[in-house]
Amino acid sequence: MRTHLTSLILLAALGLTANAQDAPWQRATSNTPPAEFPQVDEQGRVRFRLTAPEATRVQLMPGGADNGLGEGPFDMEMHEGVWSITTRPAVPGFHYYWFLVDGVETNDRGSQTYFGWNKECSGVEVPDPEGHFYSIQDVPHGHVISHWYYSDTTRMWRRAKVYTPPGYAESSVRYPVLYLQHGAGESETGWTRQGRANFILDNLIASGACQPMIVVMENGMVAPATDAAPGRGGRPNGAFADMLVDDLIPEIDASFRTIDAPQSRAIAGLSMGAGQALQIGLTHKHFGYVGSFSGVRDIALDSDRAHIKLLWASCGTAESDRFQQLKGLVDKAQSAGLNAHWHQVQGTAHEWQTWRYSLKEFAPLLFVEERGDQ
Amino acid sequence: MRTHLTSLILLAALGLTANAQDAPWQRATSNTPPAEFPQVDEQGRVRFRLTAPEATRVQLMPGGADNGLGEGPFDMEMHEGVWSITTRPAVPGFHYYWFLVDGVETNDRGSQTYFGWNKECSGVEVPDPEGHFYSIQDVPHGHVISHWYYSDTTRMWRRAKVYTPPGYAESSVRYPVLYLQHGAGESETGWTRQGRANFILDNLIASGACQPMIVVMENGMVAPATDAAPGRGGRPNGAFADMLVDDLIPEIDASFRTIDAPQSRAIAGLSMGAGQALQIGLTHKHFGYVGSFSGVRDIALDSDRAHIKLLWASCGTAESDRFQQLKGLVDKAQSAGLNAHWHQVQGTAHEWQTWRYSLKEFAPLLFVEERGDQ
Repeated sequence: MRTHLTSLILLAALGLTANAQDAPWQRATSNTPPAEFPQVDEQGRVRFRLTAPEATRVQLMPGGADNGLGEGPFDMEMHEGVWSITTRPAVPGFHYYWFLVDGVETNDRGSQTYFGWNKECSGVEVPDPEGHFYSIQDVPHGHVISHWYYSDTTRMWRRAKVYTPPGYAESSVRYPVLYLQHGAGESETGWTRQGRANFILDNLIASGACQPMIVVMENGMVAPATDAAPGRGGRPNGAFADMLVDDLIPEIDASFRTIDAPQSRAIAGLSMGAGQALQIGLTHKHFGYVGSFSGVRDIALDSDRAHIKLLWASCGTAESDRFQQLKGLVDKAQSAGLNAHWHQVQGTAHEWQTWRYSLKEFAPLLFVEERGDQ
Repeated sequence: MRTHLTSLILLAALGLTANAQDAPWQRATSNTPPAEFPQVDEQGRVRFRLTAPEATRVQLMPGGADNGLGEGPFDMEMHEGVWSITTRPAVPGFHYYWFLVDGVETNDRGSQTYFGWNKECSGVEVPDPEGHFYSIQDVPHGHVISHWYYSDTTRMWRRAKVYTPPGYAESSVRYPVLYLQHGAGESETGWTRQGRANFILDNLIASGACQPMIVVMENGMVAPATDAAPGRGGRPNGAFADMLVDDLIPEIDASFRTIDAPQSRAIAGLSMGAGQALQIGLTHKHFGYVGSFSGVRDIALDSDRAHIKLLWASCGTAESDRFQQLKGLVDKAQSAGLNAHWHQVQGTAHEWQTWRYSLKEFAPLLFVEERGDQ
């Protein structure tokens, strides 16, 4: 009897493992078309596979200590040359990862690649039951345009990614513009590939929740040009502000049907890009709206900022340090007389899921004074 | 004296190696911004590096037997944990590659990724002295647009890449359309990322060498939809033709300012895509121009094809088998009364450099009857 009971308790304790055999595992939407792995289940667990019969040690390495897959590396187990691991339920959303094969960073050939950590990474999309707002829906879709232009600041041809709202090509309307920046080690592709900004905007615009707008995304990792070399690819610094204000904004205003006025121009960014948005948005008179997602920068708030309609800051509840910093920023801004607000995303950390939710909350607050019905 | 002479001969024999120390090595333009390797020199040699101190064997693996880097794998040499290799002078142009680390396919973290071989590959761009036609130049630039639409054939949302010529957004002109397909294992991103089709068209249009046109690029790896699953990601078959004709062409004609007529619509492709272009272009009445780059398909040529203005075929001189096949196709088409021509690209193999040159030669032949000045 005792033996039987012990077996039952053991079986219950092994329940997760047993379920792993029965659960409906699906290919991740971030996989390349033919790949069977990685797979996710309804609990958000992820199964990874790598064939490496000669390897001594293979590990799953999530990108960063805040990664919703957990803080790795995690040892994988080998059976007949195939290494595998099933994670605990992950935080929903997008997570960077790669494998360490005897210490060598190796992408998963089953995954699409996403630029982060200064390289092309593997990534896995864990479904979010509340994630319809960033899925492609049966609504009108805007375009994501690769727009090439020459930057005098960086002395190079550059590519901006530009979202134009549904109906842009068929109308003659002029639109407000949101400049939207990625984080450190990422690129101008981050907000549409990892962030799904275009689908977020499509869905918000379709439901009437936000104004139709143009969104401009550029590479914020800009070193100053020197006589020897153009300025792409260094650490971020003042060269990005110069490039944005002197080169990119005039280029966009000349090439797209924008409204060239501070109350119709916003800047926001995540992490490193949040610092850039604060620094540029609060020290130049071009922007009426400034958004800081999971990032701060100490900015003096003592000169005239009457043109600032909104300063908005956000982070995930799993970013506790940042929350205090952001709250301090918002308190300081409110004391200086600015219309400043903050928002927290439940359960998310320093990852793209925080920033998808942040964009969903922030975009409806933009350009509202432009609305005819208000 | 003999010893001295031997030394001189030895030094001469070692000349290439000695030069390798002195030659001006440059980061490949296909690198991610911060990466120092791979590097190329003026002779077209390529230096690769990978840090893997625990590995027993590391090899450079060019993608395919026709690769301009040579037919690998090539063993790399290790010094203090860093594996390296310098190739012989490579064929100019774009080459897929990856590393084999104890047999495991590993991308180079220094390279951007390019979809081919059904996965995200590393790639290296070897400069071509004649390659200005595909470089970004100081001319007006068209846009490359991601356009989402629903396909009833595949029962899924799909993304087409659409090139619109310079000035498209500012004009009300209608344009002819070229449907341009990639090869097996590639995707809708191939023609702009690896092929640089947008810059080729920008440069041709700027010089007046070709008509301004829209170029549409979609994923040709289409399996038919089933009740269980949508149809993306399988082997190519008839589902692509149905999707193109029933879904994509009506979508493009409804969403862009096209000229909806066979004499203003062309289809071309490379390798697998060449077969698709021939099969679809010669069996549907939608297309006035058909281009086959490095690929053939046995098509009956016995029905009415008076609407075909041009059948054009090309390959590289290092693709000898394909040349005979293409010549056979063109001979047969000419016998059937079609205006059929072929072209050879000097020194290139079954790789993107052949197809860049092919597009440069083919595009100026398109839609010429539309020209007001002819």
